[in-house]
Amino acid sequence: MSYQKLVCELKRFHHLNSALDLLGWDEQVNLPQKSAESRAAQSAALADLIHRESIHPQIGSWLNALEQDSLPPAQRCVVTEARRDYDRAVNIPSEFVARRAKQQSQAYHAWVDARNNDDFVAFAPFLKQQIELAREEAAFFDLNDLQAYDYHIDKNDPGMTATVIGNLFDALKDEVVPLVKQILDSTVKPDLSMFKGFSITKQETFLNRVIQTLGFDFDRGRIDVAVHPFCSGNGADTRLTTRYFADNPLDSLFSAIHETGHGLYEQGLPLEHLGTGLGTAAGMSVHESQSRLWENQVGRSRSFWDYWEPLYREAFPDQLSGVTSEQLYLAINAVSRNPIRVDSDEVTYNLHIILRFELEMRLFSGELNIEDLPVAWNDTAEKILGVRPVNDSEGVLQDVHWATGAFGYFPSYSLGNMLAAQLWYAALDEMPGMESDFSTGDFTRLLNWLREKVHHQGRRYGLMELAKEATGHELSCDALIRYLKERYLPLYQPQAS
Amino acid sequence: MSYQKLVCELKRFHHLNSALDLLGWDEQVNLPQKSAESRAAQSAALADLIHRESIHPQIGSWLNALEQDSLPPAQRCVVTEARRDYDRAVNIPSEFVARRAKQQSQAYHAWVDARNNDDFVAFAPFLKQQIELAREEAAFFDLNDLQAYDYHIDKNDPGMTATVIGNLFDALKDEVVPLVKQILDSTVKPDLSMFKGFSITKQETFLNRVIQTLGFDFDRGRIDVAVHPFCSGNGADTRLTTRYFADNPLDSLFSAIHETGHGLYEQGLPLEHLGTGLGTAAGMSVHESQSRLWENQVGRSRSFWDYWEPLYREAFPDQLSGVTSEQLYLAINAVSRNPIRVDSDEVTYNLHIILRFELEMRLFSGELNIEDLPVAWNDTAEKILGVRPVNDSEGVLQDVHWATGAFGYFPSYSLGNMLAAQLWYAALDEMPGMESDFSTGDFTRLLNWLREKVHHQGRRYGLMELAKEATGHELSCDALIRYLKERYLPLYQPQAS
Repeated sequence: MSYQKLVCELKRFHHLNSALDLLGWDEQVNLPQKSAESRAAQSAALADLIHRESIHPQIGSWLNALEQDSLPPAQRCVVTEARRDYDRAVNIPSEFVARRAKQQSQAYHAWVDARNNDDFVAFAPFLKQQIELAREEAAFFDLNDLQAYDYHIDKNDPGMTATVIGNLFDALKDEVVPLVKQILDSTVKPDLSMFKGFSITKQETFLNRVIQTLGFDFDRGRIDVAVHPFCSGNGADTRLTTRYFADNPLDSLFSAIHETGHGLYEQGLPLEHLGTGLGTAAGMSVHESQSRLWENQVGRSRSFWDYWEPLYREAFPDQLSGVTSEQLYLAINAVSRNPIRVDSDEVTYNLHIILRFELEMRLFSGELNIEDLPVAWNDTAEKILGVRPVNDSEGVLQDVHWATGAFGYFPSYSLGNMLAAQLWYAALDEMPGMESDFSTGDFTRLLNWLREKVHHQGRRYGLMELAKEATGHELSCDALIRYLKERYLPLYQPQAS
Repeated sequence: MSYQKLVCELKRFHHLNSALDLLGWDEQVNLPQKSAESRAAQSAALADLIHRESIHPQIGSWLNALEQDSLPPAQRCVVTEARRDYDRAVNIPSEFVARRAKQQSQAYHAWVDARNNDDFVAFAPFLKQQIELAREEAAFFDLNDLQAYDYHIDKNDPGMTATVIGNLFDALKDEVVPLVKQILDSTVKPDLSMFKGFSITKQETFLNRVIQTLGFDFDRGRIDVAVHPFCSGNGADTRLTTRYFADNPLDSLFSAIHETGHGLYEQGLPLEHLGTGLGTAAGMSVHESQSRLWENQVGRSRSFWDYWEPLYREAFPDQLSGVTSEQLYLAINAVSRNPIRVDSDEVTYNLHIILRFELEMRLFSGELNIEDLPVAWNDTAEKILGVRPVNDSEGVLQDVHWATGAFGYFPSYSLGNMLAAQLWYAALDEMPGMESDFSTGDFTRLLNWLREKVHHQGRRYGLMELAKEATGHELSCDALIRYLKERYLPLYQPQAS
């Protein structure tokens, strides 16, 4: 009986939280310019009300009772996840949540100004405050400052630690740094000059067709325009966004495919379990593995473009006239040294993540002071990325994450890349010829395989267990390295003329 | 102290309720086809939670205390309105609210089917149930069946009664019935054949320009597409909708101007008082007076078209070539006998309302049985409108309102028309030459006048008092009759050739 009551209450929270999500989606997609204050008040009032509902002692009693019972694994998963959420709601005081929201909002605006003015000194006190808040939050769970970074990693990926990530990233760095050098030393150079004057309407039509063909269910979702692409909602109503640039159509297209990967995961979670651990994504890294897999392994593959190239040329005949298939494919897989993470390619991207992870570690351990951060950033960038930012706006100030207190979040991007590659090879092993499906515009086999191995599992497994269960191997960087080498080395190999 | 606390709590409810409104807006504008069930669950969960918050005994205690105090009129208005809402929330049990929501949803779907199949008998039990629910609701306030109709009128227009409306409508009917005959007997006949193939994109551009020129603040609002046009949100974020037909551009345009009238009212309510009686519209009729005034008195006037006609011709040169200004203006003010309310013109529209009011009166008094309703409808339509519906789908089944329990709501459309005309002449009296502003695309003087006389008043006055305060005259049909005669009789007067 307690179990049914708990599930009923979790579903109610889910409906309320998804209403709150919609306010956030609308804020990014529709909100009139001067309505921001009103929306902030709506969201704050609703968030506060949901929080008050979610700490009701009755839930604690049900959980206590259920934890004494011997439950089947599926129910155990629901109870475990409900316990995590309940403890977090109960242990973190409302006063702290409200204060953090306010200080994050202030830090966000300070970051916008600081980046515009290339003024790290102005931002430094806000960043310091965010790290203090992160430590304070961990202390509610009796964790000391040294354990605080692990706490925040665990929030994004249950069970993951900085030590495990550090080992994975060291191995990754050792391979990717020389690989980037090898690619960039090649005489083969992509030419991006074809990407000019792509009609937005035609991009939109093409991109919608791509998304639908990949398997996104428009009967339970939609795609709109936002400044920063994202996926929100859940499988009952999945909202993707992208943005359009006439002179950068690949940004629109690959942002959309990336968000579609997130959306396909949400749409693949069991609808009847929405709101419980069985209907919730396994964590940030697994989510990112899905977006990356569709964006990169699938979307940048030759077989994908075998199908889409003729349709792309049909949509943009003038722009692509005189461009060979090989030139187009090389442009789609262009690699370059770029100080800006969001503008970087999938090979160098991981180095950006490693850079941030190493600095986060040093900030949380106390080894690195805030005031020394810009120089540390630039030194590490030069060493790892091979490019030194010319100023802090394109260095330490480039990303919003830290201003909003998102620590321990960046690693999931590269952990997701590792899992994506590992899933990719496992799928290829199990389904020989799968890639040739893509050449005919058929992505069903891959989607169904991901549905079974990943989406339908909900939160039954954490990142490490899921990797093992779905691919038969422990999570490592091996598959990602193999994939990057197999895709990029031949492409950048000068052809004998 | 209690007053400040009360206002703070009312504003919190306002934020929560406006979040709920947004779910409703999104449902009409954006919701994917198969996401309706999820949205219904979100809205129900949130509505229930807001209801539980709004019946907190603390609010009752504050109100009791404040009602003992001698308060300035503005605070008195806030307390009175809060009391209305509180008593309604407390007296109407949650069980009833949930049951009504469910039965209204069932009745809505039954109505859709019945209208499609022209099958009133199938709908009759649902309609009967809706009337029972309306009586049951009134009984929570110790009102008997004979008082139930007044209760529902009062919900839409505080202080209004069926007796008052009956007197106003009898006088209106006596004048409008012969006026319609006079217009339709004229040899002057509008020609609507010009309205074919109007590009949707160009309609949209033109219409956005109109709305902006009328004074709608797009920094705090937007316009989107919905099947049935509506205005939702509030002055902090006002959401208009319209719809587009290539072969009926006047529908899109006048729907949009109508909703803009609602939107201008919302945007004119004092922002700092949103959530209290001082920042709430005075009632349905006053709201309708604003939408009607902009749609009809302004939007169908010669001076309005003096300004917009050249721009309309610029947007649609081919469609309007060979059409004279007089032909266009006559088409904009076409009058016809139409059994369908929503397709009717502003002259005959009032007769549709009177028809529904008379039948609602007879249904609530028990004089008319549900099973006799279709014949009673057709007889009354023939008598008042001069046209007998050929079936129930274009007769008694044409409108959704009764299926959703909206009784006592129709009268506000014609009460709004009366007030609109009365405000119109009062504004003209006070600001001679105001109409010639329109010819130059300037609508500021009228908007500012409405801001002061109506919008800024919030809920300080009910319909009858507001009419008196704003126009110096008791509410009557005189101004409406005068307006209809002044606008339509010359137009339908055959010119000496």
